[in-house]
Amino acid sequence: MRKIADLRYAGAVLEWDQETYLPPRGAEIRAGQLATLASEAHELFTAESMGTLLERLNAATALTPAQQANVMRTREDYRSQCKYPPAFVRELSLATSASYHGWMKARKENDFRLFEPELARMVTLKQQQAALLGYQDHPYDALADDFEKGMTVKQLDEIFLEVRRELKAVLEKIRMAPAPDDSMLRGHFDRDAQWDFGVMLLQSMGFDFRSGRQDISEHPFTTSFNARDVRLTTRIDEADFGNMTWSCIHEGGHGLYEQGLSFEAYGLPLGEAASLAIHESQSRLWENNVGRSMAFWTRYYPDLQKRFPALDQTGLPVFYRAINKVSPSLIRTEADEVTYHFHVMIRYELEKKLLTGELRTADVKAAWNELYHTYLGVEVPDDKSGVLQDVHWSHGSFGYFPTYSLGSFYAAQFYAAAERALPGLAEKISSGDLGGLLGWLRENIHCHGRRYYPGELCERVTGEKLRFRYFLDYVRKKYGAIYGF
Amino acid sequence: MRKIADLRYAGAVLEWDQETYLPPRGAEIRAGQLATLASEAHELFTAESMGTLLERLNAATALTPAQQANVMRTREDYRSQCKYPPAFVRELSLATSASYHGWMKARKENDFRLFEPELARMVTLKQQQAALLGYQDHPYDALADDFEKGMTVKQLDEIFLEVRRELKAVLEKIRMAPAPDDSMLRGHFDRDAQWDFGVMLLQSMGFDFRSGRQDISEHPFTTSFNARDVRLTTRIDEADFGNMTWSCIHEGGHGLYEQGLSFEAYGLPLGEAASLAIHESQSRLWENNVGRSMAFWTRYYPDLQKRFPALDQTGLPVFYRAINKVSPSLIRTEADEVTYHFHVMIRYELEKKLLTGELRTADVKAAWNELYHTYLGVEVPDDKSGVLQDVHWSHGSFGYFPTYSLGSFYAAQFYAAAERALPGLAEKISSGDLGGLLGWLRENIHCHGRRYYPGELCERVTGEKLRFRYFLDYVRKKYGAIYGF
Repeated sequence: MRKIADLRYAGAVLEWDQETYLPPRGAEIRAGQLATLASEAHELFTAESMGTLLERLNAATALTPAQQANVMRTREDYRSQCKYPPAFVRELSLATSASYHGWMKARKENDFRLFEPELARMVTLKQQQAALLGYQDHPYDALADDFEKGMTVKQLDEIFLEVRRELKAVLEKIRMAPAPDDSMLRGHFDRDAQWDFGVMLLQSMGFDFRSGRQDISEHPFTTSFNARDVRLTTRIDEADFGNMTWSCIHEGGHGLYEQGLSFEAYGLPLGEAASLAIHESQSRLWENNVGRSMAFWTRYYPDLQKRFPALDQTGLPVFYRAINKVSPSLIRTEADEVTYHFHVMIRYELEKKLLTGELRTADVKAAWNELYHTYLGVEVPDDKSGVLQDVHWSHGSFGYFPTYSLGSFYAAQFYAAAERALPGLAEKISSGDLGGLLGWLRENIHCHGRRYYPGELCERVTGEKLRFRYFLDYVRKKYGAIYGF
Repeated sequence: MRKIADLRYAGAVLEWDQETYLPPRGAEIRAGQLATLASEAHELFTAESMGTLLERLNAATALTPAQQANVMRTREDYRSQCKYPPAFVRELSLATSASYHGWMKARKENDFRLFEPELARMVTLKQQQAALLGYQDHPYDALADDFEKGMTVKQLDEIFLEVRRELKAVLEKIRMAPAPDDSMLRGHFDRDAQWDFGVMLLQSMGFDFRSGRQDISEHPFTTSFNARDVRLTTRIDEADFGNMTWSCIHEGGHGLYEQGLSFEAYGLPLGEAASLAIHESQSRLWENNVGRSMAFWTRYYPDLQKRFPALDQTGLPVFYRAINKVSPSLIRTEADEVTYHFHVMIRYELEKKLLTGELRTADVKAAWNELYHTYLGVEVPDDKSGVLQDVHWSHGSFGYFPTYSLGSFYAAQFYAAAERALPGLAEKISSGDLGGLLGWLRENIHCHGRRYYPGELCERVTGEKLRFRYFLDYVRKKYGAIYGF
């Protein structure tokens, strides 16, 4: 398993390099290198001898519970991976690289038509993948399960129904109230001063720079090659320090999870994150529940003001309202934490229809623009701000978007549990003591790796299955106070 | 072959990352990842089916000369690689990582004793390697042949005899003459201004930044993942701009060779460098024959002065003498081009004795210091400036050092041929036109890859076998003019 992990994480290093330092003309060969690493790892993992070993281990009686969990999860992975023919693995990897570069080009030219053939090829591959994996009700189930064990269209439809019903009602109330002024968030914020502020925040959160680093990339992301080598990236827009600030806190949340995984279990399920939604719960808990709270900025706003004297005239309460302004917008990654889930829902609806063939790739752009009009009341002016804004489809990540919303909902439920377990948490945070919260996350979530399914983990940590109500309560309380309803 | 290249070059990416961006605690797992990539590449390449294919190709009659050359070189590699048991490949890779970190630590602590056990283990592995590869006269032959096809102790002894005889005589003459003043080369030279100057030089040389990049590392090096992704590194010492300048030109020379190799032949011998000495000939030709010439600085010195006004008071002739000051010193990488070869010779003598067991690792330090006294007349004050200065032994590169001297000797012979082929070359260079020289190198050396053995290539390019006389003539003429003998 370590050998397979070595190959997989070598691929991750090459992907990280591709997003940060790769010279433009190096892309062509890099695609082949990534495909080879993916194929070799797949071949080693799906070898018959691996299956035999796993069956013997599964029948063994002298295993510790942790060892049993490793065997169980590995067997599941083995069975799932064995469904992919080697040629499919290579084809998917090569198609992903081509599609990523197609998307980059289309985005630069602001023309969806340049990406459409690549998207069509990717949808076909994803339909094949769903068929290979198998499903009962909906091809989407097969892909979603790959990202979030046990997640189905049935459950997701129920969750997004709540979004459309309950969250929509909150949004209506917010729309009736006067909007906070957030003009002070825009201006000129020096690149180096932003970088230093971000690094200081990461250090305060407990991110260990001896076991990780931060670089610049076009799209912020986190990747990890083991618990002692975790790479974050950020981007800096000198006209808008918020872009860097919350991407830094968000990726820092992902990074803390990776650094909190068991180093000793490198290559084994217990050394891996529980699921993508649990991963996202960590980033969004830090980004929103902590990073957009009054407590957090009580500590860090004076520091921010020192670095950016333009904020001198703005008091903390005004700043707090500004950074929590809710306003329907075009770009998912820049959306506030209320409207965010409508962005996700739109992508979810489109993906489902693409997979069943109800929607043709040629019509995705029109459908996208229509849904943005319907759910968010915004008109999409061009492809770059619309259907071409996200990298995910070009990466072949279909079934992935819902984990973003689930992440927020888990985050709210986890944070409520942390508040119960850690009395005076807000006061601690407002004094800059973030270690108590990190310790609780480490102990309750990070250290388990993939030992439990995401749903089980949630029950262990919070005493309940995932419930949308926690997020709704959080949003109602916070935004009720800000908007006065 | 492409698949194997993908794995090998993925390892090269991980090594590059290790020297540039790896967080300190990431080193442990990285060692395993490198060992796995090395083992997998070795296993694929030494598969029986590969041998069968190569024999069939070797017997085929319809191959073009280029295809025949690819088959011949690959068969040689195959036979050589098959001599290594898989366990040995993995052990050597792991030992190399451990030894590298041991050397780093010992160097930091300035204490050879901390590195000695790692060195002893490495010497044992190298003795095993020589035995596995086989040799007639001397275990050193087996290792040297691996870096430089056909090179033997017999030939190397002859070459270094010339160094001891002829070069020593030149050095004596230089010692008798008054030494140039080079105090203006030291002072404060701003980091960013140095970086920009280095990048400008690389661009002037023709290094293509769309197909490569430069980063900072502790020890400058060049690595390549294909002809369109070539990575240089440099280091910057604000007290001494020369450190950055000539390391930049040197690595740029390596980089131009890599970018000049056939992109289409990726993974095949014709897409690889002819040998390490030929590689070094390219870096040293640019560093010394070009980069320390009056013609070169006629064009670039005014630019340097603009960036560093402290040089305002120094005229070009004084600057030229200063950068060509010959003076026995402690550190090989900072040595002038005359005394440099005594540094190499010392390492060569020590390596030979280590391999035969004549010299024990515990006694290397004393032997090192004695040889520096004998050949260069300098006393070694500490291990960092002595036996711990080079990374090579920790990398397991025994038999490698002589390629540095051979590189200089090839460079002089190639440069003499270029001067014959390109009338007015010095004038071109002094006007900043370096493209003619690069074109000649591309056409006569780079484009062939490993098609010819180094010796054959030299004969094709210059009409003669490698002859020390070209270097001697170059040195006598250049330094005779500077020192007036």
